[in-house]
Amino acid sequence: MPRIIVQAVEGRTLEQKRHLVRAVTEGVVEAFDVAPETITIVIEEIRRDHIAKAGILAADRKAST
Amino acid sequence: MPRIIVQAVEGRTLEQKRHLVRAVTEGVVEAFDVAPETITIVIEEIRRDHIAKAGILAADRKAST
Amino acid sequence: MPRIIVQAVEGRTLEQKRHLVRAVTEGVVEAFDVAPETITIVIEEIRRDHIAKAGILAADRKAST
Amino acid sequence: MPRIIVQAVEGRTLEQKRHLVRAVTEGVVEAFDVAPETITIVIEEIRRDHIAKAGILAADRKAST
Amino acid sequence: MPRIIVQAVEGRTLEQKRHLVRAVTEGVVEAFDVAPETITIVIEEIRRDHIAKAGILAADRKAST
Amino acid sequence: MPRIIVQAVEGRTLEQKRHLVRAVTEGVVEAFDVAPETITIVIEEIRRDHIAKAGILAADRKAST
Repeated sequence: MPRIIVQAVEGRTLEQKRHLVRAVTEGVVEAFDVAPETITIVIEEIRRDHIAKAGILAADRKAST
Repeated sequence: MPRIIVQAVEGRTLEQKRHLVRAVTEGVVEAFDVAPETITIVIEEIRRDHIAKAGILAADRKAST
Repeated sequence: MPRIIVQAVEGRTLEQKRHLVRAVTEGVVEAFDVAPETITIVIEEIRRDHIAKAGILAADRKAST
Repeated sequence: MPRIIVQAVEGRTLEQKRHLVRAVTEGVVEAFDVAPETITIVIEEIRRDHIAKAGILAADRKAST
Repeated sequence: MPRIIVQAVEGRTLEQKRHLVRAVTEGVVEAFDVAPETITIVIEEIRRDHIAKAGILAADRKAST
Repeated sequence: MPRIIVQAVEGRTLEQKRHLVRAVTEGVVEAFDVAPETITIVIEEIRRDHIAKAGILAADRKAST
């Protein structure tokens, strides 16, 4: 603990995910004054046909969400 | 916000998912009196070898769950 | 199954929650063609000092989220 | 209810998952004195490039997590 | 990891929760052949006015869920 | 989206939570190159009698988790 779950629409590169877990870990270390080793981050990617806003799937919109 | 997560065993069609996000969004709009644009719905499909009832995986049952 | 989780900022009345579970259940029945008895809905209320947008807690904003 | 979610790094066999849902169901039955039929277990597998400790993805470590 | 989340309607005693985390940990150790120290269990209690089946809140039913 | 959930044992101050949502938002903006307004953060506090490691509740340990 702490455990951080990052939910995002699919499409980020491995390099962006590496950057994400480094930057978010630093943010939690700084705010909560805990050791980096105590921090777990889990990324959950969501398919564009599995997320909707205003009743319309992202996959069915022209522009992206 | 609100954010709605729908967890279901895999196997629904894209048309059923379109119907789902439309119908659930309408239900939340009606009950909470919020604008549709504020409502996000996420669908999480669960594999049949990843869900169990009474200690038996759905994939190992004859009839479906 | 299906299981639906509704996450919303705290502040809805019991009557609104009753309305919500009725309306969302109807939506899922209609879209997925399942019996109402198979549908579970869980409401998760979020405190205003536990949710942030653009890096600012809802509790610290003048207008509500 | 109860519903149990088991989150683990990918890589377990089907036989291990069968064993897991049987053993965890027995544990909940014993502790909460409920019927096995009331217990649902969901397994969530996490990819090694989607989990990080101390700011480093499991996929980028030599030894496993 | 693994991390296990147990969702249950409120009302279990502290002694039942102690029993639960001991019994579920043993089940996961046995099935996945991991050390007990790697296993985290989180209990999430759900209020009876926050869970519904067939469109009716548990708090509004005579018999319990 | 993205949506970030931070799970931590209870006991942080409001000032630490303010710091957290600011720092984590900055980390996600930097890594994913998105506008801060698209980022939601939710904090989930866990009671010490609701989290266990190695089969023992944090509330039952002398030292903290």
